[in-house]
Amino acid sequence: MKIHNFSAGPCILPPEVLNEAAAAVGEFNGLGLSLIEISHRSKDFVAVMEEARELTKELLHLPDRFDVLFLQGGASLGFYTAAINLLPTEGRAAYVDSGTWSAKAIKEAELLGKIDVVGSSKASNYDRIPTFSAPPKETSFMHYTSNNTIFGTQFASTPDAGVPLVADMSSDIFSRTFDANLFHLFYAGAQKNMGPAGTVMYAFDKEAMSQTGRAIPSYLDLTVHAGKDSMFNTPPVFSVFVTLLTLRWIKANGGVAVMQKRNEAKSSLIYTEIDRNPLFEGHAHVDSRSHMNATFRLLDESKTERFDTMWKSAKISGLKGHRSVGGYRASMYNALPLESVQTLVDVMQALEHEG
Amino acid sequence: MKIHNFSAGPCILPPEVLNEAAAAVGEFNGLGLSLIEISHRSKDFVAVMEEARELTKELLHLPDRFDVLFLQGGASLGFYTAAINLLPTEGRAAYVDSGTWSAKAIKEAELLGKIDVVGSSKASNYDRIPTFSAPPKETSFMHYTSNNTIFGTQFASTPDAGVPLVADMSSDIFSRTFDANLFHLFYAGAQKNMGPAGTVMYAFDKEAMSQTGRAIPSYLDLTVHAGKDSMFNTPPVFSVFVTLLTLRWIKANGGVAVMQKRNEAKSSLIYTEIDRNPLFEGHAHVDSRSHMNATFRLLDESKTERFDTMWKSAKISGLKGHRSVGGYRASMYNALPLESVQTLVDVMQALEHEG
Repeated sequence: MKIHNFSAGPCILPPEVLNEAAAAVGEFNGLGLSLIEISHRSKDFVAVMEEARELTKELLHLPDRFDVLFLQGGASLGFYTAAINLLPTEGRAAYVDSGTWSAKAIKEAELLGKIDVVGSSKASNYDRIPTFSAPPKETSFMHYTSNNTIFGTQFASTPDAGVPLVADMSSDIFSRTFDANLFHLFYAGAQKNMGPAGTVMYAFDKEAMSQTGRAIPSYLDLTVHAGKDSMFNTPPVFSVFVTLLTLRWIKANGGVAVMQKRNEAKSSLIYTEIDRNPLFEGHAHVDSRSHMNATFRLLDESKTERFDTMWKSAKISGLKGHRSVGGYRASMYNALPLESVQTLVDVMQALEHEG
Repeated sequence: MKIHNFSAGPCILPPEVLNEAAAAVGEFNGLGLSLIEISHRSKDFVAVMEEARELTKELLHLPDRFDVLFLQGGASLGFYTAAINLLPTEGRAAYVDSGTWSAKAIKEAELLGKIDVVGSSKASNYDRIPTFSAPPKETSFMHYTSNNTIFGTQFASTPDAGVPLVADMSSDIFSRTFDANLFHLFYAGAQKNMGPAGTVMYAFDKEAMSQTGRAIPSYLDLTVHAGKDSMFNTPPVFSVFVTLLTLRWIKANGGVAVMQKRNEAKSSLIYTEIDRNPLFEGHAHVDSRSHMNATFRLLDESKTERFDTMWKSAKISGLKGHRSVGGYRASMYNALPLESVQTLVDVMQALEHEG
């Protein structure tokens, strides 16, 4: 019986992807060698990197002026990397503070210049996407976190800030369509909708780069990596390969628009139940709810042990909420089937019917 | 018939490691889930990270005051990371320039302070480990590259500089014993003797940290990672796991001292043949020869096509030299069996006997 994997990340990947990844660790492309023991400069791996970059451009409908890189360090290094590539010396940038990861992004950017926090929902434990004020004059970009994994909130649509956008899309990249033309840069750790841990994708407008006047360390300089086709140094071979397999799976299943429809069906199912079932309440405000991570709790905490026993018996995994919020969190990334959400809803209803 | 994998990196890993890695991508620890779809905060993965860190300390006989981290970005980010953690503002450091990677390390460190290049073999295309002059007064550390993959040179022993050492050991870590007490820090990309691409190991004296007076970006601050047990952010799960498997294999095979004996036997076999066989000459000076990467060339280039055909027929892979040196490079990391080197020597002798 298959596990229903609601883990917040690293998280569920399509079974076809896992099978092909395991096979490639055994032997890759009939070479008589494992994927992880060949040179990254071999034609077999260069083809992997190129296809992953091209497929990203295709699936996200990126303008020609965009480049795509697969690097290392996760979004945590991305916070600093984004700012050092785009924030001029003596410059200023606007940041929206919508959760733990936004706050971390702000902290790193503040090492580099003047940061205006134009909106924050910290006071209400990040239970909503904050409204924000217009960025001040001479703002280079506005940075936001498109989906807040911990709190279960998500920007309903791309914000209109009047300045170029920069976004950390780690937990909703490839889950819905958006217009990349509004961005100078977006970045995303792979370990939600895109692949396994170990690589972070940067997509950026090449024309917006190299304008800060800064001396940037080579590994943090996106133009250095772009000039080497994302192979400035040894890339995280396995993570890029499994990301490619996941992107192929997205394409074979109809692309990002189809993923979005599926994700909306899943989130609709769980939120309808949270709102209907008298035993539960949601954490996030209704208009800020995430299609990726539904946060909710039992109104009567004495039922916790019973509920936990029931969902574990149903082979549900990874449902425990983050310690900052408590309760439960159902993460429903692309690879999670609707059937898994239905299983969870069935358990919630069974608990209700126990009375 | 098994391939003889002489690739310079990513490179050969033990077959047992590859088999276990492939199996874990299918299912890990009987969880019903893949290694790459579980939370990095799960007890199953935390145990992986802890064992990898502890086994590193054990196999390298690290003093208690040392900490070990598995991060991302490779040695290329390590060049900057090492300097920003150890070079005080207004400080100075000494660097030995023994090859391409040393030169890159110098370039990154120069962003942060005064760098004294105390020795260089660049003028002779890095065909030897340079002698170096005593570092100037007020030098915080001397940095060197212990093994130069491209040129096939290696420090015969740990240099005596009169100041604390910092080293990039990417291509010879775990291949020979050394005294860690002489170091403030050493770091190594995993993809040679330690595991697959995608993680870099930092080992450092905790007491030498936090003395630069710098504001360090969080991801580059080794004390930040140490404070979170190498889990400040999502680690490169697969790469750390396969590194752990490789470390277990080193331990099960007798530890680093046994690896060193095996590596000396392999390098002795190939260098004896290079020196004996009238068709070949080595690139590196004899007293600078690497036990990891033997660089050599045909004296008569017209025999190139024939030699290439012969070694390829013998199922030898990855023997082509780096473009900076030309000729051939036999990389003989821990997992390469003596039998593979013997196969190469047999081919070299067969070429000689063709006349």
